[in-house]
Amino acid sequence: MMKTTVCREAHFNAAHRLNNTKWSDHRNQTIFGKCNNPNYHGHNYDLIVKVTGYVDPETGYVMDMKVLKDLINERVLETFDHKNLNLDTEEFKELNPTAENIARVIYEKLRVGVDAELELRVVLYETRRNYVEYGE
Amino acid sequence: MMKTTVCREAHFNAAHRLNNTKWSDHRNQTIFGKCNNPNYHGHNYDLIVKVTGYVDPETGYVMDMKVLKDLINERVLETFDHKNLNLDTEEFKELNPTAENIARVIYEKLRVGVDAELELRVVLYETRRNYVEYGE
Amino acid sequence: MMKTTVCREAHFNAAHRLNNTKWSDHRNQTIFGKCNNPNYHGHNYDLIVKVTGYVDPETGYVMDMKVLKDLINERVLETFDHKNLNLDTEEFKELNPTAENIARVIYEKLRVGVDAELELRVVLYETRRNYVEYGE
Amino acid sequence: MMKTTVCREAHFNAAHRLNNTKWSDHRNQTIFGKCNNPNYHGHNYDLIVKVTGYVDPETGYVMDMKVLKDLINERVLETFDHKNLNLDTEEFKELNPTAENIARVIYEKLRVGVDAELELRVVLYETRRNYVEYGE
Amino acid sequence: MMKTTVCREAHFNAAHRLNNTKWSDHRNQTIFGKCNNPNYHGHNYDLIVKVTGYVDPETGYVMDMKVLKDLINERVLETFDHKNLNLDTEEFKELNPTAENIARVIYEKLRVGVDAELELRVVLYETRRNYVEYGE
Amino acid sequence: MMKTTVCREAHFNAAHRLNNTKWSDHRNQTIFGKCNNPNYHGHNYDLIVKVTGYVDPETGYVMDMKVLKDLINERVLETFDHKNLNLDTEEFKELNPTAENIARVIYEKLRVGVDAELELRVVLYETRRNYVEYGE
Repeated sequence: MMKTTVCREAHFNAAHRLNNTKWSDHRNQTIFGKCNNPNYHGHNYDLIVKVTGYVDPETGYVMDMKVLKDLINERVLETFDHKNLNLDTEEFKELNPTAENIARVIYEKLRVGVDAELELRVVLYETRRNYVEYGE
Repeated sequence: MMKTTVCREAHFNAAHRLNNTKWSDHRNQTIFGKCNNPNYHGHNYDLIVKVTGYVDPETGYVMDMKVLKDLINERVLETFDHKNLNLDTEEFKELNPTAENIARVIYEKLRVGVDAELELRVVLYETRRNYVEYGE
Repeated sequence: MMKTTVCREAHFNAAHRLNNTKWSDHRNQTIFGKCNNPNYHGHNYDLIVKVTGYVDPETGYVMDMKVLKDLINERVLETFDHKNLNLDTEEFKELNPTAENIARVIYEKLRVGVDAELELRVVLYETRRNYVEYGE
Repeated sequence: MMKTTVCREAHFNAAHRLNNTKWSDHRNQTIFGKCNNPNYHGHNYDLIVKVTGYVDPETGYVMDMKVLKDLINERVLETFDHKNLNLDTEEFKELNPTAENIARVIYEKLRVGVDAELELRVVLYETRRNYVEYGE
Repeated sequence: MMKTTVCREAHFNAAHRLNNTKWSDHRNQTIFGKCNNPNYHGHNYDLIVKVTGYVDPETGYVMDMKVLKDLINERVLETFDHKNLNLDTEEFKELNPTAENIARVIYEKLRVGVDAELELRVVLYETRRNYVEYGE
Repeated sequence: MMKTTVCREAHFNAAHRLNNTKWSDHRNQTIFGKCNNPNYHGHNYDLIVKVTGYVDPETGYVMDMKVLKDLINERVLETFDHKNLNLDTEEFKELNPTAENIARVIYEKLRVGVDAELELRVVLYETRRNYVEYGE
């Protein structure tokens, strides 16, 4: 028997701006362009969380999707939904909220809640045309 | 021959908060909940612009879609994309940027650029699950 | 000012079979084919509820989408989600659960909860390729 | 009881070029740009056919979707799928295959096969971002 | 030259209930909740089949998609489409039809029809938000 | 820290026919069926380009998506968009433009523009139901 991957999609809406707090305004503007707008812009983030492991022969589940859904709600949506990532969250006070960094932060927040023998991977759509993947 | 409707989709990303500037903070918070977050949140707005009229027998067009695309770029995307609707735009300095109001403002901005004998209708998706329609 | 339409999407999963309880098995099988399978089959139903009216100048809303979302949950999803439409619901004990009939039943269940001066329209996707619309 | 609309989606792939056979090459190139490429380009056309009428109380159907599906296959897909619209079809030998004209031709081909008391409307996506609507 | 993966999407609609036939009703209800509804519920299953191998220099194909389409029709859709997975299929008489188990069964049914040197992977969407992956 | 994958979607429309220039017409017709239509057919190709590497701690980027977008425009869209792949491009004068071969050609055209330490993978949708993947 091979491992199976189970995937759960969720959504959150947030404001952000791309900004390296150690750079000058001029350099931030040059590198990040309109994504550096000081008054922020925003996105509907579509998140897919993938968990890989062996199917439990009793339940037929790799992991109960209701448990995964609750974990995503608690650890990701309650922290990021309808928030300003730069101003309202501890995670991005210093860290630039690029899609790459948001995906890694979400991975780390979920990793501690998912059994260690299960692999975890996060896919984050910033727009329909731009998305990132991070994890095992 | 009946009229034909031609439709063009575009996208913009923006930050906003729902807020009636004439209400108290408490009332705004009660009515708009997390959408009233003082630090803003944001969306990927999907915009569909529909133009209805008779097909020109010479071109086979109701309206040249390249012209409509340019009109949407100039009058909508350049004003709203990667902006904070409440802070960065004249249109929503006083007006609450609900999806309903944004759709009407977009309609009015486009209406002056589209021939008067053509009907105009705007569809605006705030999220995949919430959208509004305005126009003839 | 013209009227604005606000739209909210929801989902439910259900089993059903197409069957006219007044017809013979043979006639049901002839008319409805594999959709008449006596052991049922099922769908992920995608529901879009559209409400049309004037925007309240105070709130910028036609209708609070949270109220509409709760109404859909109470009157549609709690009744139909994860149910067998033919066996588990009063509405389709006698009435054949075609997409047309399901859309009309949903319309009627929602109509009593939406202000009479607002127009109501229901769009119901049975599959990605088959859907119906009912209402004003 | 109000009328109900039933909708069926279908797909076809075709090559075409925009070209008014009565114009000079130069004028065609000026008006239609890269869509006038003499060697053609192509699209995956997504077609939605909408039929509006009263639900038959016996079947619960406005119209049997299997009948509509077969009608679309016979009258539209067999004629246009995997074809060069300009070269391989009678309909567009002289008529410029803009989305507007293709939608009207499809409407007319289907109109004769659908009962006269039923309304018919055609939606044709040329790309995800460009589509047209024609019919009652 | 690296290997190429070719992917084909298909759809089927089915009823099911989650149920371990060796458990008590109470335990099934506790673990599977509304998915254990004794009268079943249902889904539109979206299936993606991925085949990985080297491109044949003669045909430019990894595998003829028409052959793969026919194989999916014969071995998956004819068995599962418009069926009750628990009642109408041999495969799930005893086996709990979770998405994980359905994906593995589909993999095994297709594996015997695909050349052994080609890798096979199955993606199965139970809803837009829940899906699983199984295979090489 | 693990590697991150960043993905960018783009679109182009093109005509093509499947044809092995070394085969007889009869053999081409037998193997490729309606895809061998001598007058061509066409598609809206959806392209996803995936780049995998370590996130730069300064920018928070694996690779600037604006750079990747420009690279795709220059090396893929300018060559293939609104073209006849068989007639208008050097790449497919002799090479059969199957989705597999188009994906590999796109990979090779992009590979020279992306840093060697970054992995590159291309996903190409020929239709919503048929797509291929190629790359590291």
